[in-house]
Parts: sequence; structure tokens; C-alpha cells
Amino acid sequence: MLPIAVDAMGGDNAPGEIVAGAIRAAEELGVPVVLVGRRDELGDTGGLEVIEASQVIAMDADPASSVRTMKDSSLVRCAEAVRDGRASAMVSAGNTGATMASALLRMGRIKGVSRPAIATPIPVPGGTPTVLLDAGANAECSADWLVQFAQMGAVFARTRYGIENPKVALLSIGEEPTKGSPLVKETHKLLAEGSWIGSTGARFIGNVEGRDLMTDEADVVVTDGFTGNVALKTLEGALKSIVSNLLSVFDSTEETRAASGVLWPALLPLYGQLDPENTGGAMLLGVDGVCIISHGSSSSVAMVNAIRVANDMVTGGVVEHLREAVRPTEG
Amino acid sequence: MLPIAVDAMGGDNAPGEIVAGAIRAAEELGVPVVLVGRRDELGDTGGLEVIEASQVIAMDADPASSVRTMKDSSLVRCAEAVRDGRASAMVSAGNTGATMASALLRMGRIKGVSRPAIATPIPVPGGTPTVLLDAGANAECSADWLVQFAQMGAVFARTRYGIENPKVALLSIGEEPTKGSPLVKETHKLLAEGSWIGSTGARFIGNVEGRDLMTDEADVVVTDGFTGNVALKTLEGALKSIVSNLLSVFDSTEETRAASGVLWPALLPLYGQLDPENTGGAMLLGVDGVCIISHGSSSSVAMVNAIRVANDMVTGGVVEHLREAVRPTEG
Repeated sequence: MLPIAVDAMGGDNAPGEIVAGAIRAAEELGVPVVLVGRRDELGDTGGLEVIEASQVIAMDADPASSVRTMKDSSLVRCAEAVRDGRASAMVSAGNTGATMASALLRMGRIKGVSRPAIATPIPVPGGTPTVLLDAGANAECSADWLVQFAQMGAVFARTRYGIENPKVALLSIGEEPTKGSPLVKETHKLLAEGSWIGSTGARFIGNVEGRDLMTDEADVVVTDGFTGNVALKTLEGALKSIVSNLLSVFDSTEETRAASGVLWPALLPLYGQLDPENTGGAMLLGVDGVCIISHGSSSSVAMVNAIRVANDMVTGGVVEHLREAVRPTEG
Repeated sequence: MLPIAVDAMGGDNAPGEIVAGAIRAAEELGVPVVLVGRRDELGDTGGLEVIEASQVIAMDADPASSVRTMKDSSLVRCAEAVRDGRASAMVSAGNTGATMASALLRMGRIKGVSRPAIATPIPVPGGTPTVLLDAGANAECSADWLVQFAQMGAVFARTRYGIENPKVALLSIGEEPTKGSPLVKETHKLLAEGSWIGSTGARFIGNVEGRDLMTDEADVVVTDGFTGNVALKTLEGALKSIVSNLLSVFDSTEETRAASGVLWPALLPLYGQLDPENTGGAMLLGVDGVCIISHGSSSSVAMVNAIRVANDMVTGGVVEHLREAVRPTEG
């Protein structure tokens, strides 16, 4: 089996946490992993193979120009490893824009895909995450692209979460088909018409609102990359604000520390479901290979989860299913 | 002093909670209130004056056609009371779209205002709320309108929260001026140029992201009504999900109930800051009068707070300040 290429230099905690996560994933999951980066800086790789890459694209670098000029960067080399059949998938916690650009330029698009999109799992306490896409790859979209996002999101929900007939919804500002922006109204018509469903097994359930994202209302929520990114970051900000304020209340006196100690065991499952370390990362759908985008702040735990998801997507044949889903219907 | 017109028939808990809140506001705040609705259904009004209105616009009715055809509805009569100088402001927990349409059609726009916008306070634990606008009045916007939202939002932040020099930001998907949709990029240029600031005292601090809404990064965040509504509802959904999951953990065993009992006094201030009952409602900025839009699920407490805000806006002269802020500069 081909190894999963891990960008050892990408992320706020690279290379330490990334390498540690890769070693753990190889040991605990039995998944072959190859590290990509500056061999000298990786420390003990626990016997993992290394693909040498001399350059590092910074977290805040301009994606397009970096990828164009830094041909020996760890990100570009990761994508090339997938393209050249040396790796089955790539995983990076680095610069998101540069990860997308590397994957798109080196792997290319799946035939028929207009634009790749980022599919991000939104936590649903006690339930299966909601897949939100596009979470930021395309700031401006056409209705046709959104329909393709629906196809790709449904395939991802099935492969990732085993949902045979994913409920697909369109993000809007009211349930009525007449509400929303011109783009949303046009997309609603196309999605309701249904000829896009094909092999995806999806069911279009209409419009949903932002408040439905953390519920089991829909399995897949489709939107343009601007709105999706705003929604995702708003949600992340809200969770972060509440968790940090709760923790500071818990830690305010001897008494509250004792009481919260009693609550912790019961709170941990909820906390675990909301922790971005546990989502397994987002996936760039539509490129001709598996590309998992992990949080910039990823720890070794997040990397283990991201590598597990990459492996699941490879063994689940997600790229083949995507290819079939977006194939234009004949006649 | 003119009374505040309260739509006694609007909201999920109308008229009971609405009337109870109006009575409490009159007693506790010393603010004169007039109830608008079906006198027979209001029960004991505690001596408050009533403006009779025989019709009720349902929560899910089509806004435009309802307002056009139901001329004796409580919402339309509220807006007329303000227009005719019988009331200083209107407050409703009813159909949001119909509230906007009533205010716009009966009060008219402030001269120079292109489009009214809904300004909604976003809770910031331990700090002053962030004013988000437009939170849903205009699903499609031009850059010029967004600049006017910046002017109006700054005036609102000053009048509502006493912020002399409000930090105004543009909602986008990255801090760089080059990121975002075409609308955002164009608006960024206009806001950065600065000639809109005039009497508002605002400072443009650039783009912010969804994750900044619940922080003190900006005092006012400007966006189109589609994105704003998605962000607002995403945030509301996240808060609701976490609070309800926390409460169910707290209530799961004898032990957790005892422990959470110890934590409650320390948690209450946080809970209070996040509770939509306490925000005082949103304000429709740009119509020629004060119009406060309270949550559909408003209790009497929410109504007291909304009436307090309406009164503060009247005494603070917000309409006059808005008029000055949007006046085209001469020469």
C-alpha cells in the first residue's frame, strides 16, 4: 500500500507535533506514512521514510506566488508525491491557500469538476457532523458550481460517515425558496430539479439557516466559499469564546474548581466533540487525489486523526466515487 | 413625553408576555408605553393606553403583501403612531420582515439613506457587544450601501454604548484587503478612503473574520444582509447547542446536579450576557423613526429591555445623529 504524504513543515507546531503525530499514526493505525520536509530539522522520525524538500511556504505567504516559485517546498513535493504515484494522499496543517494551490496545480482536477471546494465537518453534539462546503476555496461562485458542491459533498458524507442517502441542504436566510441572494435562488431551483443526484444517493431537503449547522437537520450544507468561510469562523469563534469563558469560571475559586472536577468526566465527551483536534480535518474535494487540510494549530492528536481520515478516504475510493458523481449524464 | 408604541400582538408569546413586559417597563423604567392591538385580547393592561388595531400579521406571513393589505394590523398601526407623532418609537417581537416593511412604508427613510439595515448586538463576554449590520434586511447589497451601513452602525454604537470613536470593520474571509468577494474588495477601498467618516467619529480598522465577532476586536462589523444573517444565525445556533448540551450534562446525575449548583452563581453573569433576552433587540437603522425588533421568542424580560433601548435611542437623538451622518458632504 502506498504511504500517506505528510507535510512535516506545515502548521504552527511543525515539525515537532507533526512528526510525532505521523509516528503515532503509523504505529497505532498501521498506516504507512512518508514525511516531506527538511530531513535535518525533523529530529527522530521513528524510522519513517522522508522525501526531502528544502523549502517551506510560510503560514502567511501568498499562496499562488509561493507555489509558483517554491518548487522544492514541502507542500509542492507532497502534491507531486500523490501525482507521481509515490503516495496515496497528502495531509498538511500548513498554509491553507498554498495547500489548495499545490494540490490543484500538481494533481489537477477530476475530469468534469469546475472548481474544487473545501468540505469541513461541523460538530453536532451527540450526532454525525454536518459537512459544510465550500468552506473557503472560492470566494465567488456560480449556481452550477454549487450544484457540483452538492454532488461532491454527498459523496464525501457517504464515504466519510457511511450515510447512504445524505440529506443535502442549501444555506440561506429562510426556508422559503424565494428567500436569499440571487445566487441562492438560482441554485435552489437547480437542486430542486434533481437531475444532479445521479450516483450520489443524495436527497435535497431545501434551504437551511445558520442555526441548523450544529443540528442533525442536514448531512451536507452547500454554500459559496465566502459565506461558508464566514459561517465556519463565526462558529469556531463562538465555541472558542464560550469554552474559554467557561474554563475561567470553573477555575475562579477553590469551590468552583472542586465542583468542575466533579463535572469534568461528564463534560469530556461534549468537549471532545467540539474540539477541532478531533474532526480529522477538512478535505479538498474535486482535485485528482486525496488532500486533507488540518487546522494550522494542529497537535500530534489532530495529525493522527487527519492521517486516519486520509487513509479512510483512500481505502473508501472517494476519488473514484467523486469522478462518477460529477460525470455529465449522457443523452 | 410621547409614549413608546408596543406591538402587543407580535411574537410567539403575544399578547401575554408582551403586555406583561410593557407594564413592567412603564412601572420600573418610568417610560410611557402605549399598547397596539386587539383591546379585547390584551387582558389587564395595568392602566396602559391602547391603540386599537383589529388585524394581526402572522409570524410566517409574507411581509410585503401583509403590510399592503392589512392596514389595520398592529404592526402598521405602530408605525403610523410614530409617523403621526403619537408615539416616539415602535417595538415589536412580531414578523421581522413585516416590521421592516411597516416601518419603511409608514415612516419612510431618512433623507439620503439608500437602504435601511438591521443592526444586531452580538454578545462579547466581559465586554461591550459588537454591532453587526446588516443582519438581514438586504439580501443583496452594493458597496455604497455598505459604506452607509458603516456610518449608521457607528452612530448606533455611539448612541447605544457610548463609544465615542467606534472601531468599524468589514466582515471578510481574511485580513488582507485583497481577500474576499468582489463586493468586499470594493467596499474595503471605499471604507479605507475615509471620506464617509464625517460626523460619526468612526475609525476603519480593516477586515475582520467571523471569529472576531464575539471579541472586542471591532465595535461595528459591516456586511451584506445575506452574510450577516447567516453569521448571526450560525452564532445563535452554536450558543443554543452548547448551552442546551451543558445543561443536560449538569442535569445528568445527582452528583452533577450538586456540582452545577455550586457553579451556577459564577456562571450566571456569563449566561446572562449570552441570553438573547438581554440584548435589548435589534434596531432598524435608516427609517425616519426608532424601530426596535425584538426576538420572536421574547418574554416579558426581553420586552422590558427592548423598551428601555427604544427609550434610550429616542432620548439619545439617534435619528438626528443618523440624519447628520448620512448627509452628503458638500463641495
